[in-house]
Amino acid sequence: MRELKIGVIGTGRIGAEHIRRIQRHLSGAGVAAVASSSPKRAEKAAELYGIPEVMTAEKLIRDPGIDAVLIAAPGSVHEQYLLACLECEKPVFCEKPLADTGESSRIILEAEADAGRRLIQLGFMRRFDRHHRELRELVCSGSMGHPLMVHAVHRNPRAGEDFDDRMEIMDAAIHEIDVVPWLLGGDPLAACRVLHGRTASCAEGKLYDPQLMILETVSGVLIDLEVFTHCDYGYDISCEVVCEQGTVSLPASVSNIVRQGSYRRVREYDFWKERYQAAFDMELQHFIDGARAGALEGPTAWDGYMAAAAGEACLLAQKSGKRQEICYMEQPALYQDAEGFGR
Amino acid sequence: MRELKIGVIGTGRIGAEHIRRIQRHLSGAGVAAVASSSPKRAEKAAELYGIPEVMTAEKLIRDPGIDAVLIAAPGSVHEQYLLACLECEKPVFCEKPLADTGESSRIILEAEADAGRRLIQLGFMRRFDRHHRELRELVCSGSMGHPLMVHAVHRNPRAGEDFDDRMEIMDAAIHEIDVVPWLLGGDPLAACRVLHGRTASCAEGKLYDPQLMILETVSGVLIDLEVFTHCDYGYDISCEVVCEQGTVSLPASVSNIVRQGSYRRVREYDFWKERYQAAFDMELQHFIDGARAGALEGPTAWDGYMAAAAGEACLLAQKSGKRQEICYMEQPALYQDAEGFGR
Amino acid sequence: MRELKIGVIGTGRIGAEHIRRIQRHLSGAGVAAVASSSPKRAEKAAELYGIPEVMTAEKLIRDPGIDAVLIAAPGSVHEQYLLACLECEKPVFCEKPLADTGESSRIILEAEADAGRRLIQLGFMRRFDRHHRELRELVCSGSMGHPLMVHAVHRNPRAGEDFDDRMEIMDAAIHEIDVVPWLLGGDPLAACRVLHGRTASCAEGKLYDPQLMILETVSGVLIDLEVFTHCDYGYDISCEVVCEQGTVSLPASVSNIVRQGSYRRVREYDFWKERYQAAFDMELQHFIDGARAGALEGPTAWDGYMAAAAGEACLLAQKSGKRQEICYMEQPALYQDAEGFGR
Amino acid sequence: MRELKIGVIGTGRIGAEHIRRIQRHLSGAGVAAVASSSPKRAEKAAELYGIPEVMTAEKLIRDPGIDAVLIAAPGSVHEQYLLACLECEKPVFCEKPLADTGESSRIILEAEADAGRRLIQLGFMRRFDRHHRELRELVCSGSMGHPLMVHAVHRNPRAGEDFDDRMEIMDAAIHEIDVVPWLLGGDPLAACRVLHGRTASCAEGKLYDPQLMILETVSGVLIDLEVFTHCDYGYDISCEVVCEQGTVSLPASVSNIVRQGSYRRVREYDFWKERYQAAFDMELQHFIDGARAGALEGPTAWDGYMAAAAGEACLLAQKSGKRQEICYMEQPALYQDAEGFGR
Repeated sequence: MRELKIGVIGTGRIGAEHIRRIQRHLSGAGVAAVASSSPKRAEKAAELYGIPEVMTAEKLIRDPGIDAVLIAAPGSVHEQYLLACLECEKPVFCEKPLADTGESSRIILEAEADAGRRLIQLGFMRRFDRHHRELRELVCSGSMGHPLMVHAVHRNPRAGEDFDDRMEIMDAAIHEIDVVPWLLGGDPLAACRVLHGRTASCAEGKLYDPQLMILETVSGVLIDLEVFTHCDYGYDISCEVVCEQGTVSLPASVSNIVRQGSYRRVREYDFWKERYQAAFDMELQHFIDGARAGALEGPTAWDGYMAAAAGEACLLAQKSGKRQEICYMEQPALYQDAEGFGR
Repeated sequence: MRELKIGVIGTGRIGAEHIRRIQRHLSGAGVAAVASSSPKRAEKAAELYGIPEVMTAEKLIRDPGIDAVLIAAPGSVHEQYLLACLECEKPVFCEKPLADTGESSRIILEAEADAGRRLIQLGFMRRFDRHHRELRELVCSGSMGHPLMVHAVHRNPRAGEDFDDRMEIMDAAIHEIDVVPWLLGGDPLAACRVLHGRTASCAEGKLYDPQLMILETVSGVLIDLEVFTHCDYGYDISCEVVCEQGTVSLPASVSNIVRQGSYRRVREYDFWKERYQAAFDMELQHFIDGARAGALEGPTAWDGYMAAAAGEACLLAQKSGKRQEICYMEQPALYQDAEGFGR
Repeated sequence: MRELKIGVIGTGRIGAEHIRRIQRHLSGAGVAAVASSSPKRAEKAAELYGIPEVMTAEKLIRDPGIDAVLIAAPGSVHEQYLLACLECEKPVFCEKPLADTGESSRIILEAEADAGRRLIQLGFMRRFDRHHRELRELVCSGSMGHPLMVHAVHRNPRAGEDFDDRMEIMDAAIHEIDVVPWLLGGDPLAACRVLHGRTASCAEGKLYDPQLMILETVSGVLIDLEVFTHCDYGYDISCEVVCEQGTVSLPASVSNIVRQGSYRRVREYDFWKERYQAAFDMELQHFIDGARAGALEGPTAWDGYMAAAAGEACLLAQKSGKRQEICYMEQPALYQDAEGFGR
Repeated sequence: MRELKIGVIGTGRIGAEHIRRIQRHLSGAGVAAVASSSPKRAEKAAELYGIPEVMTAEKLIRDPGIDAVLIAAPGSVHEQYLLACLECEKPVFCEKPLADTGESSRIILEAEADAGRRLIQLGFMRRFDRHHRELRELVCSGSMGHPLMVHAVHRNPRAGEDFDDRMEIMDAAIHEIDVVPWLLGGDPLAACRVLHGRTASCAEGKLYDPQLMILETVSGVLIDLEVFTHCDYGYDISCEVVCEQGTVSLPASVSNIVRQGSYRRVREYDFWKERYQAAFDMELQHFIDGARAGALEGPTAWDGYMAAAAGEACLLAQKSGKRQEICYMEQPALYQDAEGFGR
């Protein structure tokens, strides 16, 4: 089968990571062109990773030599580029979020529906993490009874200077907002509360940190989620699903065990790159394989819409301090039969 | 030093445990008399553990041959017996709760204040658990910055037929209600929410189970506590305190590690007796030593009052589904200088 | 039942520990007299722990006010004192070793046989450790098939200046030499090798450290045992029994889990006192209960003899570098029916 | 850079795995031809994985369209094919063992020396395992002092019907024989003992299982290694390096933590494929990258020779039951400057 020629839009941290991944680690694809709001950065990436062409995003999407597109640009331009891809009927991998507003999301969903087949895979990499997948499988097997509660923690050692209350939800918590309903076998979020108490000194003035989110699903599962983006010690994701006859939890960080100086210790993950490296590889290989086969699977634009809608409700709850219900548009037929990877 | 002659009131499960403990495992004391609402059970305990006398609770408290009293009878009779003990100026170990109502608690506090010295030790055994104590020490050392959040879980494998929503708080959660503020170095609870979602099938009709309690302390620490008294797999207490530069958690159950049949497994605790056996021993030895030395330490009647007041607020919150503030009476001078074990 | 009046011989580290234990933590006994090769230390202990009398060991053993004896003096005087106790028919708890030489051991065994009933309990405290006991139970249940191999580690953070190759076996390894055959359900050691390679710098000139002992049991189980008395980081005892359909291992040290500064850590035990505190308590309470009931159980003089015989073979193997068979005298009838605690 | 066209010789279990890996998961290479002693199996693999050509091994090696060769055929044909590859100056990835006899190994080393540059990468995948690499890094950093001992375990759940004492060493233990000296920073094995005791019922008649190998390195490190290929419960590799001021151990199997039915459990690995999947990927990607860059790194033919020489000494020791010294030929200059991955 012919190698998939991918055009990458965006050369920031995650964009560069994806380019390196495609060029050095994955099978069946190559980056054929790169676009960036910073042409300098695009040139640099092209040189570093042997990418033959640098062009504008608009041109890249329409270039007949480009088979598929990867969007790692800011959320504000997603609508524009996704619509262009859909118009050209090119498979596109789009980093979260699907779009910046609910209105944008809706327009994208409609355009994909018009295209008549799935062309968008959304970058929720956790669904490709082995432990998340096994957890989902066990919970959905029913062997421990119905799920009743979820305890989740999302900790980053530190966050950029511009990190604010909005990003605490839309950049950090958004992963749990997507993945927990999926872990529960497709049990959408129905309501949310966002609480905060004492804030860590190093975050004061910027945002409330940590924050405690209380989510409820349609079937009545209660979820508590600590989001703490200045926890100092490491990148730490934990999740325990409590069922009627047992619980299942993601493993903590894995490393060699050192006994020294009165302690037995293991290293925490430093950053999300280390924790989810294999999941990122698998996610993108999955996109490549799907695009080559002409049958995209993996997280859909609809998944992106659901997460965005819940995230927006959380933002309201964050401001009001009150319980906020979450409403969704009706699910387009295109996604109702969506089957495939992790569904 | 002369052996302490203890009179025990109550021969239910916990009373019998305490008798066995004093007669077989602890130093410096013996059970000299036993009283019970069921004289038959009192006779049986007396025979089984070699206790010389069976009498009524009232007589036992006043008997000059009895140096100290242990109350393991239902909460409804605590006020009556505690007041009698205070009147006789006898040291008394009282199982939680201090009393059944706030009014009762207040009367007891005043009576102890009138006595002019501490005569009551309350049965919050967790404060004597090695791991709880080390956790408190580390948090209070300040080496990880201020505490910000606490995640706690309280699971029992199953509960009696009469277990209801009130007991979910006053019998189960009451331990965390007492111990978490203590772990934080004396940071009283200020408000609470009690939420429930889907209930485990085996508890349906009896109570909401599990329940999720969200507590706030005066200094702004947010606490989420899962109470689940029908979790099926074991007795599981966990607690993680999240601080500005790190977190500290109680260890999970400890047992040999078995590799067999595709799994590596450790045994969960079956029941609270196993988990807290050493803490119960230490708690009661501490009472014996304190009573013999004429200087009681350990959890006070005031601690019992604080927990009861917070517990009652939780009951209101449980009914209303709303955030409920917690109010306390002014702390009597007797307890303001209270120092000692774990303070 | 009357309190057991114990006379303690020896007020070194372990003697003082036992005195404190009896006076402060255990039930049914008190230290009524103390003897020491250093009268000054004896006086000090008497004062510190409220012991009424200080006397010579000989007088103490014969004093009619003394019901039972605890020997925590050096091994070289064990024979003399044990024979005196047997002559007086007084129950005696004797710290390991039973005696300094095989000849001494034999004389003691014969004297106890002459007494016609068990009067000696030997201080192998590990048999009272909860995890050792559960491990033994599981292995002996047969649910994992026959045991085939054992991997054991015995590490101390540091050792005294006088610690030498002999003590590496007779003071450190002696615990595994006793306990491993017991864990296997009574499978005596049949042969041994003692190897050493590179020695830790801090031990150089004093002894070979670590040493690797390869033991074989009568039924063909192979045991490798690392003894390392200068491991620096903590007191660490581990043991895995490999069976035909699974393995079982003692748990590592237990403490709170701290996440801080890029690591997740738990504290190692500092010293044997901390690791085996509950086992020491249980061991001595067991002696007190047995002495009061007139029916001693727990590790026997014969167990002491077996360990000493194997230990002496290990000393020969340590010198020769070769495989050394281990021979035992015939088991006296007194011990053949020995039943009871952990048997 | 042009895609590397690889010819694969051998389509057994490991050969098929490597083909799948190259075709589906790795970057920069494709399988252009396949050869097998069973033409049927070769045809099947070609069809399954879209390989354009099936040919004989001899033709494949000489085909100008083939850039590099992967040998996954039995050890007995390695010499023949490796020599052909060296003659054609084609980079070749060769599964362990390098060759079947020491004489064969020597001939191969000389031929590679004649070629004047490294053309062979040997399939010791553990050197690419993240945890092995981090362990090596820590030990070699010297931050814990010199290494003194190693405890290693190599367990397979079960083995084929033809598995025998020779394979216990040359197929199973060979991995530790290679990797432990490497973990110690290049400390060759100097002597060995191979002991066996009781054998698991299910292996009886076929081989001694488990076996205990005691290895010594040139610098005096003692290594004990349990090899047990019928352990029933899973694939379990463990390794602890004991240094002067601490120890470091590989982590046990990683999976979600399930609390259910009185236990907390994690899944053991079922097979080596699962445990070392990422290491296999990295190993082969490394070969592809090195072959394309014209500068091969990774385990050398010399590493293969060293392991084979030590393995043969172990076979002698296994027969004699005695300590056996291990001798090596002088290291050819080609390997003396060998630098690179994991060196």
